[in-house]
Amino acid sequence: MKITQITLVMMFTAMLFACNQTKEKMDDKKQEVEAIFPKGEKGSKDLFTGNAYPTPLLNADSVYNTLIGNVYFEPGARSNWHIHPSGQILIITDGVGYHQIEGKPIEIIKKGDVIKCPPNVRHWHGASQDVGLQQLYVIPDTEKGIVKWYEAVTDDQYSASNLKNEK
Amino acid sequence: MKITQITLVMMFTAMLFACNQTKEKMDDKKQEVEAIFPKGEKGSKDLFTGNAYPTPLLNADSVYNTLIGNVYFEPGARSNWHIHPSGQILIITDGVGYHQIEGKPIEIIKKGDVIKCPPNVRHWHGASQDVGLQQLYVIPDTEKGIVKWYEAVTDDQYSASNLKNEK
Repeated sequence: MKITQITLVMMFTAMLFACNQTKEKMDDKKQEVEAIFPKGEKGSKDLFTGNAYPTPLLNADSVYNTLIGNVYFEPGARSNWHIHPSGQILIITDGVGYHQIEGKPIEIIKKGDVIKCPPNVRHWHGASQDVGLQQLYVIPDTEKGIVKWYEAVTDDQYSASNLKNEK
Repeated sequence: MKITQITLVMMFTAMLFACNQTKEKMDDKKQEVEAIFPKGEKGSKDLFTGNAYPTPLLNADSVYNTLIGNVYFEPGARSNWHIHPSGQILIITDGVGYHQIEGKPIEIIKKGDVIKCPPNVRHWHGASQDVGLQQLYVIPDTEKGIVKWYEAVTDDQYSASNLKNEK
């Protein structure tokens, strides 16, 4: 093998390495962008099924009367049924999930969606079976109360989202 | 030049091309992830300096008493001075920018930050000189009013952020 050939092989190998490094760096960056807020601690089994990570971002006080937080739901994870005395707004910042107001069909929620749940209505929300969900929650008028928790969403209730998807 | 050498040169060229294509695709993806909400229309010159794109996400009503929206500020862009009768919460979802409450130092705001501005206090917010800003705004208790606009933030007021950075 001549020197020119050896040089070309070395350049080719270096190029492969550099290209892979660039890809890895950009994968890291993508991951970083997806998680805007710290992941936080795993939520209680008494309130969530599966792995959900709620992170408070703004505590209720008498100035803003508003509670804000983030929840990361791993695929398959969801909240228990619950109500908010003054309603709730969900802002979906990444992923795909489900929201159901009791008695209504499950709705698919995804990045960029803004979802309203009226006051004193039972609902649940969580990730889809295959893709996680990053969601902000906003609870207004906190002087009326914040949340009342009820029973877990059963596998049958949750898997009804599959039937919807197949339609 | 022998056939082996020609083959190596061709492989090297193909590799360069493929690597660049991968990078471009990932740049596209990165861009897509950064913008959670539609960019919307360019904001009025009467309210913003530079290119700012406000997008309403939740209109005020009597149920939630809350107004939510997104603003994308291109580098250098900022709001005019303004007040909110019931205050404002900013949630920074990407980039780097500035927030200033009148009479206080400019604070640097960045992805993951949650910023409060009290009721009836003049403030402005916008992007840094070199990096854009994606920010959600939440205005509570909208029955008290939403916003009162004042004059533009001058270049001198805005460039005071540079002095802060150099300290």
